Amino acid sequence: MSMHLPRPKQQNREENLAERYLRVRQTTHDLCKYLQPEDCVVQTMPDVSPTKWHLAHTTWFFENFVLEPFCEAYLRHNDHYHFLFNSYYQSEGQMHARPHRGLLSRPTLQEVFDYRRIVDEAVIKLLESSKSGGELKDRLVLGLNHEQQHQELLLTDIKHVFSCNPLEPSVHPALKLAEAGQTETYHYLPGRSGIQPVGAEGEGFCFDNELPRHTELIREHSMGSRLVSNGEFLEFIRDGAYTNPALWLSDGWATVEERNWKRPLYWNEACDSEFTLGGRRALDLNAPVCHVSFYEADAFARWSGARLPTEFEWEMAASEHPVNGNLLDSGFWHPTAAVGESRQFYGDVWEWTCSSYAPYPGFQPLKGSLGEYNGKFMCNQMTVRGGSCVSAREHIRASYRSFFYPDARWQFLGFRLARDGRP
Amino acid sequence: MSMHLPRPKQQNREENLAERYLRVRQTTHDLCKYLQPEDCVVQTMPDVSPTKWHLAHTTWFFENFVLEPFCEAYLRHNDHYHFLFNSYYQSEGQMHARPHRGLLSRPTLQEVFDYRRIVDEAVIKLLESSKSGGELKDRLVLGLNHEQQHQELLLTDIKHVFSCNPLEPSVHPALKLAEAGQTETYHYLPGRSGIQPVGAEGEGFCFDNELPRHTELIREHSMGSRLVSNGEFLEFIRDGAYTNPALWLSDGWATVEERNWKRPLYWNEACDSEFTLGGRRALDLNAPVCHVSFYEADAFARWSGARLPTEFEWEMAASEHPVNGNLLDSGFWHPTAAVGESRQFYGDVWEWTCSSYAPYPGFQPLKGSLGEYNGKFMCNQMTVRGGSCVSAREHIRASYRSFFYPDARWQFLGFRLARDGRP
Amino acid sequence: MSMHLPRPKQQNREENLAERYLRVRQTTHDLCKYLQPEDCVVQTMPDVSPTKWHLAHTTWFFENFVLEPFCEAYLRHNDHYHFLFNSYYQSEGQMHARPHRGLLSRPTLQEVFDYRRIVDEAVIKLLESSKSGGELKDRLVLGLNHEQQHQELLLTDIKHVFSCNPLEPSVHPALKLAEAGQTETYHYLPGRSGIQPVGAEGEGFCFDNELPRHTELIREHSMGSRLVSNGEFLEFIRDGAYTNPALWLSDGWATVEERNWKRPLYWNEACDSEFTLGGRRALDLNAPVCHVSFYEADAFARWSGARLPTEFEWEMAASEHPVNGNLLDSGFWHPTAAVGESRQFYGDVWEWTCSSYAPYPGFQPLKGSLGEYNGKFMCNQMTVRGGSCVSAREHIRASYRSFFYPDARWQFLGFRLARDGRP
Amino acid sequence: MSMHLPRPKQQNREENLAERYLRVRQTTHDLCKYLQPEDCVVQTMPDVSPTKWHLAHTTWFFENFVLEPFCEAYLRHNDHYHFLFNSYYQSEGQMHARPHRGLLSRPTLQEVFDYRRIVDEAVIKLLESSKSGGELKDRLVLGLNHEQQHQELLLTDIKHVFSCNPLEPSVHPALKLAEAGQTETYHYLPGRSGIQPVGAEGEGFCFDNELPRHTELIREHSMGSRLVSNGEFLEFIRDGAYTNPALWLSDGWATVEERNWKRPLYWNEACDSEFTLGGRRALDLNAPVCHVSFYEADAFARWSGARLPTEFEWEMAASEHPVNGNLLDSGFWHPTAAVGESRQFYGDVWEWTCSSYAPYPGFQPLKGSLGEYNGKFMCNQMTVRGGSCVSAREHIRASYRSFFYPDARWQFLGFRLARDGRP
Repeated sequence: MSMHLPRPKQQNREENLAERYLRVRQTTHDLCKYLQPEDCVVQTMPDVSPTKWHLAHTTWFFENFVLEPFCEAYLRHNDHYHFLFNSYYQSEGQMHARPHRGLLSRPTLQEVFDYRRIVDEAVIKLLESSKSGGELKDRLVLGLNHEQQHQELLLTDIKHVFSCNPLEPSVHPALKLAEAGQTETYHYLPGRSGIQPVGAEGEGFCFDNELPRHTELIREHSMGSRLVSNGEFLEFIRDGAYTNPALWLSDGWATVEERNWKRPLYWNEACDSEFTLGGRRALDLNAPVCHVSFYEADAFARWSGARLPTEFEWEMAASEHPVNGNLLDSGFWHPTAAVGESRQFYGDVWEWTCSSYAPYPGFQPLKGSLGEYNGKFMCNQMTVRGGSCVSAREHIRASYRSFFYPDARWQFLGFRLARDGRP
Repeated sequence: MSMHLPRPKQQNREENLAERYLRVRQTTHDLCKYLQPEDCVVQTMPDVSPTKWHLAHTTWFFENFVLEPFCEAYLRHNDHYHFLFNSYYQSEGQMHARPHRGLLSRPTLQEVFDYRRIVDEAVIKLLESSKSGGELKDRLVLGLNHEQQHQELLLTDIKHVFSCNPLEPSVHPALKLAEAGQTETYHYLPGRSGIQPVGAEGEGFCFDNELPRHTELIREHSMGSRLVSNGEFLEFIRDGAYTNPALWLSDGWATVEERNWKRPLYWNEACDSEFTLGGRRALDLNAPVCHVSFYEADAFARWSGARLPTEFEWEMAASEHPVNGNLLDSGFWHPTAAVGESRQFYGDVWEWTCSSYAPYPGFQPLKGSLGEYNGKFMCNQMTVRGGSCVSAREHIRASYRSFFYPDARWQFLGFRLARDGRP
Repeated sequence: MSMHLPRPKQQNREENLAERYLRVRQTTHDLCKYLQPEDCVVQTMPDVSPTKWHLAHTTWFFENFVLEPFCEAYLRHNDHYHFLFNSYYQSEGQMHARPHRGLLSRPTLQEVFDYRRIVDEAVIKLLESSKSGGELKDRLVLGLNHEQQHQELLLTDIKHVFSCNPLEPSVHPALKLAEAGQTETYHYLPGRSGIQPVGAEGEGFCFDNELPRHTELIREHSMGSRLVSNGEFLEFIRDGAYTNPALWLSDGWATVEERNWKRPLYWNEACDSEFTLGGRRALDLNAPVCHVSFYEADAFARWSGARLPTEFEWEMAASEHPVNGNLLDSGFWHPTAAVGESRQFYGDVWEWTCSSYAPYPGFQPLKGSLGEYNGKFMCNQMTVRGGSCVSAREHIRASYRSFFYPDARWQFLGFRLARDGRP
Repeated sequence: MSMHLPRPKQQNREENLAERYLRVRQTTHDLCKYLQPEDCVVQTMPDVSPTKWHLAHTTWFFENFVLEPFCEAYLRHNDHYHFLFNSYYQSEGQMHARPHRGLLSRPTLQEVFDYRRIVDEAVIKLLESSKSGGELKDRLVLGLNHEQQHQELLLTDIKHVFSCNPLEPSVHPALKLAEAGQTETYHYLPGRSGIQPVGAEGEGFCFDNELPRHTELIREHSMGSRLVSNGEFLEFIRDGAYTNPALWLSDGWATVEERNWKRPLYWNEACDSEFTLGGRRALDLNAPVCHVSFYEADAFARWSGARLPTEFEWEMAASEHPVNGNLLDSGFWHPTAAVGESRQFYGDVWEWTCSSYAPYPGFQPLKGSLGEYNGKFMCNQMTVRGGSCVSAREHIRASYRSFFYPDARWQFLGFRLARDGRP
């Protein structure tokens, strides 16, 4: 499907906000390049949203939080959309129930693209005309980061949708394939300890949950040299882990039994292939294991005589590396084996930590409805770090915190190990 | 969406089998004229199948029961389709679970249309080449009746889908509207009684469940002069029927409480409008009430001091009338007020009877897998009679028996009353 | 636990109403002889009521329908009991939800026995003082038949409770054991056909659902010579019946799969023992199969090339036999092999028929709340006939109709076969 | 019910282990003094265990972890009991499913008391004969602390059972009533901060989850002067808190809506009485609010502009106070208003903290099956501190950690507030 976006006047070398806006919005479109209208409707479980919903919700975000407050002349495109495409902002009014998102065939995909175009034009116009005070800019940048979060969700959700279809379609029929890597033997590196500063610093964008920057007491520990691989996870399976309650947290074991888990999500029964955004592929034993829950990561760590890192141990280690790795921009859309000395802190898979997702001391949610963005989820979830193979590179940093329920598997979720004491 | 079907050579005045085949298949397409690809994917409850599924399943029926046995050269179009589009024929192998039909975005609508075209071409070719013995013809005619059943389901299912969307789309944006009728006062007509023959007779097509023709003992009774109307049902509501357990069967009352029923499906809370295949419309008080369950029909009858007719009382009365009325061919796609002396036996709404759906004495299901067509459903369901405003006229006859669970409401289901003794 | 009931003055040979009242009430107590207070509290599924509830509900029935209307001086024993022990009489007011009956430890068993004694004394006093017009007597006799229905339920419910306990307790630790019978080869006897009278006749008690006596058209048929035996059902199992969908009704097969049925309820996996009211026992291959659903009976019949009898065919055949057989009074409390020429119409197991439970033509429910006794259940259930090994002999007759949902198995439910045409 | 326990030979002033054993076991019996056998069977939800199960499970604990390993001559009392009364020790073999505990009427209460007596006699005999090395003593002391945990659960579980009965029975018909207290105005006290030692210290018993003693970085904060009271919580309710999503965590609000929460568990609709272990009583506005979930505590704190304390802030503050307060030994069995300068750190209600229940750095579970005691629950739960009005005094200490899911309400659960910075 084609899309004609307004071209902002280019003024200087460095990308301006309007250019950045259009680039990020275009990236979302590019992800859908090979999808059919039918693909964009389906919801296979409450966690999954239809593609169409992602396209519309991110647009509603700009309409509701940028255009309505900052652009007097703007008229809401469709009142129903305010109800249909609000995700969870209770202060913005009632919303369509999440598990019913897949019941909606209308607006059609084309109507959603029209909605995107209309909002995009209004945003660009606003940017061109306004003095664009700090608040407008902040909202817009938040909206772009929000859009990038949904780019990732759009891909992980359609992956789930396609995995439920016996025809096993591809989201992208010609994805790049990584060269076979050689996995280094797993070893441990000394971690930084003592009273250490953590949280976002500097002028760049960050979410409210990365603040305030503060100190944490970090104990002496060692950090795993890379992500745990498919091959290593296979040993865990072959050692009977999925039938041995002694390795599991109580809630984890209950989940294994109830859902009849026997291997990572998307692996076939023989454990030699997996479903990917490019269709079914042979399992690369050197690539990081992914689509495992916190429970599986935790059980693997116990089985290994290790543990998962805390989110602060992880942040200490990661902040010594540049944000580089197998991210959305790499074009693999799937975890790849570590190459050379790569420590794999960024990209490939979000890494489960053993830290419950909780507010930092002195945490202040954003004012108004946007305060619902992060704060109200600080219960029952575990912090994950580092981004995945479908996270935009510019969207990721060492202080970035995402979070999932411990039974979640449909995201690109994996893990590395840590240990008490020096290596 | 356009469709190019092969034109059979026309040989004489009376429609031949190939012509009939193409006409019926084309009618199915015509029903989808205003649907978008997105609309054809959604399943809103297990009873509802996506439009795409109906289009494919009816095609599979011809492929599996006509082409595969009668056409040696024919190669199955796609092995997955055999699994995906088998509905409930256990003897044909495993099938995709009914409640998961809405998880499939592929094959796309266009691919399904391609499937239809390929099968249609093969069927026409088979018809042209073969001496078309009785068995082939019988199968084909069965397939066409099967297709006509699914034409009705396609419309009732997409109606449910659209009713779950706050945007309330229309299946057909320019449906004909009936002129306002004048409803005759409800009265009773004497019914035929004694030992009477029932069941299908003659050479025309019938389903196995209409046979054998046999005699039933029919008691003296009176038959309601027409269908019960919206206006009459409104009185029942206003008399507090939905809060008075004394009027209801025990299972009916449990259903009313559990699902919080307060009015027919698709009525608004104010009871002055209803959702139709043409969008939301004012309630016509003279039109027959529809989208009511057996429980509601039964409670209304008790409230009226009457009862529902047995299926045989109904058949006696209906067989004195020609098959005429507000059927699919009328183009209203919604029940209309009785006009003049119309007794409304055919069309408008399927009529609930008080007869459990059971085999006739000496019932023989069809041989082979097709024996699963009707017989295995002869438990827990009630017989309905007469066809509805979305049944093809040529598909309906006095002996025709359809059947639904007593809590079903999403079909065009209504009722008339009967009484013991002479009027 | 002991019970001291008032002794009515004995006046003549034939048992008077007071004597009969005390005898029936005493029988209920006798059934509980070996139960502990703890046993009388448990509810293992919504269909099952605790023993204590049966003891109290039957007492409430007399209090509410006999004492309150006929005895001015009587004061309700406890207002809470009216709420707690009303079963399903909506016209009598709100009631405690059926699935929560097992949440009540109070009133204690002893308090329930006290309640019984107080009501019994008041009833006897009423009987002695009153002229006992027809209405009082009718109510009392209805109450006694009601009590006898609950005697059966009390036993079948506590059997289910004990079957869920790995300790497998006995309801009666010294139940009589039947001698090993010799089962006659299954054969068919000619049935009476034509227009035949059915329903209750004569002066004796009957329920409203056995009336009015009327005629039915009965077709030529043959009736199985006895109940189907455990040995015969074992052949059905060994022939793979529980894995062959072709033998089952659609709803039956769905139930088999959902509940993972592989044999009758209470059989062990090896199919050589079964749980009984006297604890676990070896399976008697000659005894009638029991604790099978309608679906299993229907599938067995299909597998045998036969069918189940209609309730009227059954009534024709049974009415030629005296009410005799293995009933509660026999003291086995378990089905026993047919002896000699016994046709096993009465006792052993309730026999599934292929008739949906429906009102007879001209059916009139009792006036007032008691009209809820039978009529409101006339939907979704199948008629069963003949009583079981835990039905009181005087409670059973040829016209007696009981009814269960087709998936019910916890009652003593079995079946015989029938066929179209002469033997 | 009476109980005759063996009397150990008394040797000296200070209570020896045998005496302590008998005293603690006797306390459990005393709690059941007014219960009927029927009361001890019922399970009202999966979290609740029947009284009988608690009495048997604690006994199994001694049989399995003390007698079987340390007493060669001991023969297991009943093999079924090993299956029925193992709670969650997977390494000890399969166990009876928790939600089915209420299905068991046998063993009877008397049989369970017999089981207790037999095990008690064997334990006393073992203690008298053995040199009682450290391991035996450790196991026994663990068993006694385990028994004291179940004393509390026994009371909170039977409270829930009785609350589901419209007759509202009392667990203890003559509970002491507290005198009306005067609640001090809520204020904040400075908390200790900096790097501080936490966790169990000294020779006394502690659970594995209180170890190792280690340091934590505690930030500057203020600690609420007492527990939040019923009167204060009533203001929160009257301010519309239960209908205002802005005050709640996302999971909390979902729970409020799904379960239709409008007030603490056990309050009546008018918010002026509550169900207690002594029956229904007027609400004491000065007494601490109890039976509130973490979600409600968290929402109240947000509404107050405060937060919940971390478990370490709480431990710092509590460790400055002697273990004293309204505990099981006080005999109120219900929270009471703070008297004088009481800070209410111990007793009354378990206090929700904002700390997820997690292992301390270097945590080592006990060896063998007993390692399942605490460690495997370290996910999805919140730490609570301080014991309640039904915790034995000797069982509680500043370092004691208990834990519940954030939606739990059936325990005596309340909270105090804290704030960042100095008061």
